[in-house]
Amino acid sequence: MKKELNEKDLLEKLLNYTQEELEEKIEDIHPADVLDLLHDNEDDFFKILKRLPDWFIAAILEEEDDEEKYEILKKFSENKQKKILGEMSSDELTDLVGVLDEEEIKDVLKKINEEDRKDVYKLLSYEPDTAGGIMATEFVSIRENKTIEKTLKYLQKEAPDAESAYYLYVINKENVLKGVVSLRDIVCNDFDTKISEITNTNVISVPYYMDQEEVASKFEKYGFMTMPVVDENNKILGIVTVDDIVEVMQEETTEDIHRLGGVDEEEKVDGSLRDSVKSRLPWLIVNLITAILAASVVGAFEGTISQVVTLATFMPIVAGMGGNAGTQSLTIVVRGIALGELDKDNGMRIFIKELLVGLVTGIVIGAIIAVLGFIWERNFVFGIVIGVAMILNMMVATMSGFIVPVILKKLKVDPALASAVFVTTVTDVLGFFFFLGLATMFISYLI
Amino acid sequence: MKKELNEKDLLEKLLNYTQEELEEKIEDIHPADVLDLLHDNEDDFFKILKRLPDWFIAAILEEEDDEEKYEILKKFSENKQKKILGEMSSDELTDLVGVLDEEEIKDVLKKINEEDRKDVYKLLSYEPDTAGGIMATEFVSIRENKTIEKTLKYLQKEAPDAESAYYLYVINKENVLKGVVSLRDIVCNDFDTKISEITNTNVISVPYYMDQEEVASKFEKYGFMTMPVVDENNKILGIVTVDDIVEVMQEETTEDIHRLGGVDEEEKVDGSLRDSVKSRLPWLIVNLITAILAASVVGAFEGTISQVVTLATFMPIVAGMGGNAGTQSLTIVVRGIALGELDKDNGMRIFIKELLVGLVTGIVIGAIIAVLGFIWERNFVFGIVIGVAMILNMMVATMSGFIVPVILKKLKVDPALASAVFVTTVTDVLGFFFFLGLATMFISYLI
Repeated sequence: MKKELNEKDLLEKLLNYTQEELEEKIEDIHPADVLDLLHDNEDDFFKILKRLPDWFIAAILEEEDDEEKYEILKKFSENKQKKILGEMSSDELTDLVGVLDEEEIKDVLKKINEEDRKDVYKLLSYEPDTAGGIMATEFVSIRENKTIEKTLKYLQKEAPDAESAYYLYVINKENVLKGVVSLRDIVCNDFDTKISEITNTNVISVPYYMDQEEVASKFEKYGFMTMPVVDENNKILGIVTVDDIVEVMQEETTEDIHRLGGVDEEEKVDGSLRDSVKSRLPWLIVNLITAILAASVVGAFEGTISQVVTLATFMPIVAGMGGNAGTQSLTIVVRGIALGELDKDNGMRIFIKELLVGLVTGIVIGAIIAVLGFIWERNFVFGIVIGVAMILNMMVATMSGFIVPVILKKLKVDPALASAVFVTTVTDVLGFFFFLGLATMFISYLI
Repeated sequence: MKKELNEKDLLEKLLNYTQEELEEKIEDIHPADVLDLLHDNEDDFFKILKRLPDWFIAAILEEEDDEEKYEILKKFSENKQKKILGEMSSDELTDLVGVLDEEEIKDVLKKINEEDRKDVYKLLSYEPDTAGGIMATEFVSIRENKTIEKTLKYLQKEAPDAESAYYLYVINKENVLKGVVSLRDIVCNDFDTKISEITNTNVISVPYYMDQEEVASKFEKYGFMTMPVVDENNKILGIVTVDDIVEVMQEETTEDIHRLGGVDEEEKVDGSLRDSVKSRLPWLIVNLITAILAASVVGAFEGTISQVVTLATFMPIVAGMGGNAGTQSLTIVVRGIALGELDKDNGMRIFIKELLVGLVTGIVIGAIIAVLGFIWERNFVFGIVIGVAMILNMMVATMSGFIVPVILKKLKVDPALASAVFVTTVTDVLGFFFFLGLATMFISYLI
């Protein structure tokens, strides 16, 4: 079965083909595969790269991490740099300069043509995480009075440059978006059909300021390949393609998972020690403060503990189970918010369900731990105290697992960001309070 | 700005249009919007649905949750059911019957034509989470000796039925995949060009047994709209389209986040109490066992605690901080594995980095807590004991945050699945052991 090219084969070809052979054969090779190969053969990196046509180098740069693009580009002569940059689309140029400092941006911008420069300036003005920030300005637009035959001829000239020619956007002379025609509709109709006859006027667009996560959920809902981006007057500004969306989704997923785990969203598994410490230490210090809060609750009950030391033994169980139950609710609620499955209509019902989940699981876990406490301490009241404390703490846990992310969402803070810290603080503080408080109330039965 | 149709407008149109108007206008409305509308107006659900053309009802069923599809279908007459099923593609039919019991599957299969039935049987034989399980059998294939003009004519007949006509797969007479031609290449070349001249023979395909998560990462790497699925002999079986991949990614993300949070991957935020308890209780019981393990370590040191009760006060800090540090490492490592950024080549380096992160953050947090312990207990040795215990525990935490998911991965268990339980068990057990063990060793300095 033919899959990706064998790396050894590919390396040999890239090094040994004549320049003519290379120009011809390179079309059938995917730049992502060449980039993987280059990274596995750092010694030959530029030796291979320099043999490739300009457009292919541009395509490789597209696949590379934004931070690396300029570093690679700089290795070429100024003339070659201009040619490579000339092959890049406006959104790719924007990604390239988006991570550079002022001096470097100037350097790149003076090497591209007037039209691209204008597009890049425009694109740089949009927030990076919005529809405007991820769109490309290369799209195909047509007027509705053309025939299919004329459109096909026009495409034969225009399409190779366009980011995606599978949807053609129908506009009037003020660039206002009037509808959309798919390339499929064009090839499935007779040559003399007018574009207006096959135009879908109910085109779904996104405004340039829409958050990229919301744009991604539109793609998911509608299953589109591309979506047009418009301004306040419904003038078309650019298009977003689904392959950008796949990247957005990956990015947003990493962000959510990292935030739930209490690390910076930018931290990389193969990053530096310094970056990891910078990513994690702030959260650990926040956690330390909340842990001290929980500890001070325990501290207030030192008198009780000194009378019944077994309380200390059971403390980790109360706190730990509360933390776990809270994390479970939190996980479901945070993900539910991200997927848009939790809203005003079902919020109350879900809150009550979470409360009941806490009650039911609390009764099961509480009963087990009560029996265990009774056996350990040979004291009936001790079993009751820890069992009741467990039920109360697990109800608090599931409630706070619901309330905390919902409040954060209302405050327009990402629910994934700080929820875990708040929830475990609540379960630790109240868990210890219930357990040691009840024990203090019934201390005469425990000693 | 025109976005999705206003719901009220849409509702009115769907209820008041004549049947002819409806047939004509419905083409411009997206089935996903109609489905949203139906769910917001449950009372009119079937009243509206019954007015719509068969192909549009089929499109709405595609958008609906798999579990609901058959329930909706059953409301129609047998004759209408046949027509609706006739409009569905093979992969959609497979999704529909995939969640039914044997009796229901029989009922559906007898309502579809021979060819679809064969395709569905075939598709049902693939594992649901593999390339074969998510592919469609409707794709366009051509022979390489045709011209573009002939291909366009052929497409005008064939394409409306095909899942995605943007890529045409070039095959020989044994159905062996020879290459790929994009619709863009076809419209950008002269009518008399031979398909063989514009065929990319280095087509990248996936085998039917490849895991859907891996298929998604291929899409991400290459930025394709569709990919062909092949058997062991490189015969083309079907295609996967990027909109299916967007769904796969969403599904896999939910799975990872849920598993990290210790809940069942299937649990829904708006699901029933019963499902939530079933999803969470097993994990809580596993956690209870590990919490009891940790508690028994504390229990072994009750003698020491009864002599220095402040140890109980500081216990939650040692265990909590270890748990947090472990979760951080775990999060980075699990996500790194999912993104393919952690492999054999950099594994050792990352392990050492995690160890050093534990050491560095441990020294910072350990120093703070040592000072705090000294102030609280007015005992220099107490400060040293808790500070050293903290450093040791945080090193253990980051190490186990690395080792546990890596081992699970080696054992072919999803690292997200059970990592959190193991890591917190290690940090709780060893955290208490270090802290209380050191305190016992130096007990004469503490009292």
